[in-house]
Amino acid sequence: MPSLLTPQSENFPAWYQDVVSKAELAESGPARGTMVIRPTAYAVWERMQAAMDGLIKDEGVDNAYFPLLIPESYLRREAEHVEGFSPELAVVTSAGGKNLEEPLVIRPTSETVIGEYMAKWVQSYRDLPLLLNQWANVVRWEMRPRMFLRTSEFLWQEGHTAHATEDDGRAFARRILHRVYERFITEVLAVPVTVGLKTARERFAGATHTYCLEGCMRDGKALQMGTSHELGQNFAKAFNIGFTDAGGTQQHAWTTSWGTSTRMVGGLIMVHGDDNGLRLPPKLAPVQVQILIVKDSDAVSQAARKLVAELSGAGIRCRLDDRTDTPFGRRAVNAELRGVPIRLELGPRDVASDQVMLVRRIKGGKEPIALGSVTASVEEALAEDQKLLWEQAKALKASQTVDVESLDEAVDAANEGWARIPWSLVGEDGEKMLNGQALTVRCLVRQDGSVPESENEPDLVAYVARAY
Amino acid sequence: MPSLLTPQSENFPAWYQDVVSKAELAESGPARGTMVIRPTAYAVWERMQAAMDGLIKDEGVDNAYFPLLIPESYLRREAEHVEGFSPELAVVTSAGGKNLEEPLVIRPTSETVIGEYMAKWVQSYRDLPLLLNQWANVVRWEMRPRMFLRTSEFLWQEGHTAHATEDDGRAFARRILHRVYERFITEVLAVPVTVGLKTARERFAGATHTYCLEGCMRDGKALQMGTSHELGQNFAKAFNIGFTDAGGTQQHAWTTSWGTSTRMVGGLIMVHGDDNGLRLPPKLAPVQVQILIVKDSDAVSQAARKLVAELSGAGIRCRLDDRTDTPFGRRAVNAELRGVPIRLELGPRDVASDQVMLVRRIKGGKEPIALGSVTASVEEALAEDQKLLWEQAKALKASQTVDVESLDEAVDAANEGWARIPWSLVGEDGEKMLNGQALTVRCLVRQDGSVPESENEPDLVAYVARAY
Repeated sequence: MPSLLTPQSENFPAWYQDVVSKAELAESGPARGTMVIRPTAYAVWERMQAAMDGLIKDEGVDNAYFPLLIPESYLRREAEHVEGFSPELAVVTSAGGKNLEEPLVIRPTSETVIGEYMAKWVQSYRDLPLLLNQWANVVRWEMRPRMFLRTSEFLWQEGHTAHATEDDGRAFARRILHRVYERFITEVLAVPVTVGLKTARERFAGATHTYCLEGCMRDGKALQMGTSHELGQNFAKAFNIGFTDAGGTQQHAWTTSWGTSTRMVGGLIMVHGDDNGLRLPPKLAPVQVQILIVKDSDAVSQAARKLVAELSGAGIRCRLDDRTDTPFGRRAVNAELRGVPIRLELGPRDVASDQVMLVRRIKGGKEPIALGSVTASVEEALAEDQKLLWEQAKALKASQTVDVESLDEAVDAANEGWARIPWSLVGEDGEKMLNGQALTVRCLVRQDGSVPESENEPDLVAYVARAY
Repeated sequence: MPSLLTPQSENFPAWYQDVVSKAELAESGPARGTMVIRPTAYAVWERMQAAMDGLIKDEGVDNAYFPLLIPESYLRREAEHVEGFSPELAVVTSAGGKNLEEPLVIRPTSETVIGEYMAKWVQSYRDLPLLLNQWANVVRWEMRPRMFLRTSEFLWQEGHTAHATEDDGRAFARRILHRVYERFITEVLAVPVTVGLKTARERFAGATHTYCLEGCMRDGKALQMGTSHELGQNFAKAFNIGFTDAGGTQQHAWTTSWGTSTRMVGGLIMVHGDDNGLRLPPKLAPVQVQILIVKDSDAVSQAARKLVAELSGAGIRCRLDDRTDTPFGRRAVNAELRGVPIRLELGPRDVASDQVMLVRRIKGGKEPIALGSVTASVEEALAEDQKLLWEQAKALKASQTVDVESLDEAVDAANEGWARIPWSLVGEDGEKMLNGQALTVRCLVRQDGSVPESENEPDLVAYVARAY
């Protein structure tokens, strides 16, 4: 059967668009750069949300919701922030049939509006830390949109916290980075990431430190999977988030913000997808097992219902596909395209011989399994496949990364994959030169792989790559 | 202790504002009529979402996400729809630093943009029914905002479905009405509702039938808790949602839409709240049991941790409050204000006598419980309290409702509570007169309480009330 998709090796961007469209993940929206997230992809996002929400709450953070529309003047209060976001703003100038006295911007991010309220809620050191998160849509106008990766509207979570000391703020920004993001991305998404510090040039507008997690896509480009920022006292001063400390002295708080978005869906596709479509890590997959009825009969339908009950009872997410008016081949290809880890194919002959065909999307291959031992076989296959995806992605990332000793070598290497170079050989001028070649320093890391607190630490390593 | 809240009997709207503010549920946002939903209230909304999302998925509906920004021209395609929503629209006229060629409206609801995509996705009768839902924010500019009840931005779910026949569409709109909304509102929120058909005058802009669920607040006013609409072929014709039927004939689909929003939080407050604050039904409450440490000691802290483990293990949502640097009385009042169903108060003397004080927000009263039997006592109390709230709300609704035999009597009765009057005595002119008195026909119901399919059915009963 000819592939439905452009092969990755032939044209990676075309392959990506093919997967997004053929697996019915998303479509362009009517307004420039916006996106319709279709059920298959939205279910993936829901699973991401549920897993991260649990980890975020485990850190003592409460969810809340702040308004979509922010007075333009709020953004102007923090100079770097407004400069960073101005070119991307969507502006509401009339509402309720009247022109507004002050234009409202649709939030590109919510530091400013949340800062305004934190200032009201924080009075004393007893009110700190204040740990908030919201799940929301944001709008940043995109001139070169790409589904999931760069869209004018996207969905995300944005955490915002205020702390009594710089140390506490820093520790919290790093706790989210490692204990929420790194853990979720590696353990659930099975995506290996380089965790590091952004250079001053790549920092979030208004932050003193931006920490990030960079994933390596199958074409060797980097994708930022999440970021966590120390905002120092910048927003606390701009919005007057002050508190009386235990000694009775008035101080400004130290704030952080951190976010992950529907971009992660794009990253997932580009790390694990192959020429047959998406491959979803079992821990994430909304449907782990699709039971396909090859040809219907009373016995088949009864056996299928029994399988669904048994697998669901064991906590396995499964779906029955009994649309036998659609050709079996097409349904099987669809499940494959959408990355369902396991298919159980069941027809009259299978039932007669008391078995079902187990087909594996990730490891590949198919084998008949006795109906009596399906749950155990499925559980084993899911665990193995989660590990397999992780190992494949890790091997890929390692193979894409090259150690280099000069900027010239870095340019060559980063045009194919990732270049790993001493930061002392790059510096501010080197970074500008790289940017001129459409390359960026993705992040800085210590020799031992840990995350530095400053780009001035000695012996740091810089990762240079093209990026989405 | 003097009450923190204006008594309900003195000034109900002031009581409501007091609860919203003192229990830290919400605050006004910076843009007109918008709202910040604080963690205590957001946690309630999250529980509402989770419960409803499960019921919606049980009906075979998939979640998806459609863009926030809709070209103005889309709204104009359905004449009644644009007329209904025009006065409330917020309009984006510039984005990415440029004026837009066509203004974009922030979705007031998504029938139009979803209609555009349904038209692409539906080709054949095999593609139907198409059952979608989204959780989203919408903006409808409010001149007289009130927290949760009428806000310029609110959070909601909006379901949108397309069907091959009018009967199938109708059956589905009614299935959501009863099996999702009525079930959730009565069983989880413990709020009794009158379920009926809106009159033509009160119908959703663009619908052929609007079904609704009306709750009775403690001040006798009505609040629409949810609606489900049959849209006939109006949107299918405007957006060309067509399909080839089994006989090969081209037809327009029949669509429905249905929604519930953060308004429900307001309804919940006004149905169950009392002069001491919110009272949350146990099945909904994010925190069912708050364990308050009266005075700390190693033994107390150990006993408290054991209690948390035991209750959590039994699936009870509990939170430990060990902030003993805040006066105990204030913490107890806070839990009361926020409607936590059960408090377990634990001090050194309690632990010494192997007991804990169980305090009940809903039934009232406190009693010592042996530490060994806490889980059983808590489970029993939660079940009893869920029932008690339901019965109290039901009794209140019954006592507020008066049968009347003339329009004049209806006006008098509806100024105090709900008037129940034969629809034949009202009619279109009577309805206009009532509207002139700030009264509305909330819905039409059959004699046996079931939901009519048309306002022209004989012997219908109309509910007349003031409404939020």
